[in-house]
Amino acid sequence: MTTTIAGYAFDDDLPTSPVSTADLDLLLSTLLWSDDDAAALARAGAVLAPQVEAILDLWYGYVGSHSHLVASFHGPDGQPSAHYLSAVRARFGQWITDLCARPWDQRWLDHQHEIARRHTDTKGRTDGVDSPQRFVPLRYLVAFVWPITATIRPFLAAGGDDADTVDAMHTAWFKAVTLTVALWSQPYDPDRW
Amino acid sequence: MTTTIAGYAFDDDLPTSPVSTADLDLLLSTLLWSDDDAAALARAGAVLAPQVEAILDLWYGYVGSHSHLVASFHGPDGQPSAHYLSAVRARFGQWITDLCARPWDQRWLDHQHEIARRHTDTKGRTDGVDSPQRFVPLRYLVAFVWPITATIRPFLAAGGDDADTVDAMHTAWFKAVTLTVALWSQPYDPDRW
Repeated sequence: MTTTIAGYAFDDDLPTSPVSTADLDLLLSTLLWSDDDAAALARAGAVLAPQVEAILDLWYGYVGSHSHLVASFHGPDGQPSAHYLSAVRARFGQWITDLCARPWDQRWLDHQHEIARRHTDTKGRTDGVDSPQRFVPLRYLVAFVWPITATIRPFLAAGGDDADTVDAMHTAWFKAVTLTVALWSQPYDPDRW
Repeated sequence: MTTTIAGYAFDDDLPTSPVSTADLDLLLSTLLWSDDDAAALARAGAVLAPQVEAILDLWYGYVGSHSHLVASFHGPDGQPSAHYLSAVRARFGQWITDLCARPWDQRWLDHQHEIARRHTDTKGRTDGVDSPQRFVPLRYLVAFVWPITATIRPFLAAGGDDADTVDAMHTAWFKAVTLTVALWSQPYDPDRW
């Protein structure tokens, strides 16, 4: 698939991630990832896809209302950059659907690593923004597991599934978000990752 | 309170954490931490305290059944160290009750940093174990947010509270575990934390 989202073409030739599929398997084992989780996450993807803009509205409202979080989106003038916020938003939306729908193979790992680098050593480069904050602080990357997990539940419930299915989708989403943050934490300490 | 758990005396003169109460306040804001969460976590502490050994049995069964996780507990001979497992277990149990019952002040932050160092640069020193694995891998520290959150729910429900209270306790616990992992991630990348 070729997309028009800057920095988000899965067909690009990306560098191979230092994270291997063997590393991924151990992380999935740590998360007790199961075939049921995989099925529930696929269903979650179908439920969430038509709601992506509403989810992003909620998440951007949350980030925008916390100055220490929106600081990651500042431009060189020390003010939030509308261009940067908008470019990241497009990728964030694609991340939601990709997380649920893409096979978790080496190409996906390569892509996760590209995102991880975009939070650290290449931050701002894709969007041509020389942000004074040169990295997304690790503490907030970790903390985001909570809001990104907790706020998704009403959107999962909006798909009309029974309560057990909503629970299963929410569990799979929680695991998938935790996995994502684990993968994105790699560039912060490659030697002890 | 003076305890007899090696490395867990809150009255010890610990070095001041590089994490300040101002840093903590921003993390709590990121987690939308509220007075209701604080009350729910206090209730969770009362419910969990008499179940700590059963919780640890479950968590140790989980760690023990994954060789890549139990590797953090290996002794110099490359085998799991019963002494090390047991010493950590005592502290892990105390962490459960402390997380729910201690005020989150600078002393608590100092203590969290001591634990964080025990996962990284001082690993094994408290217990006199020269473990070949010199650090707890950051990826598994992050991944633990899921099992430590998910497995606690039946123990919270065992307190006889109504469903809404159990939900509130579980939310507060999820936030508190996420906060803990954020704090414990500091030594992995102090400059980008």
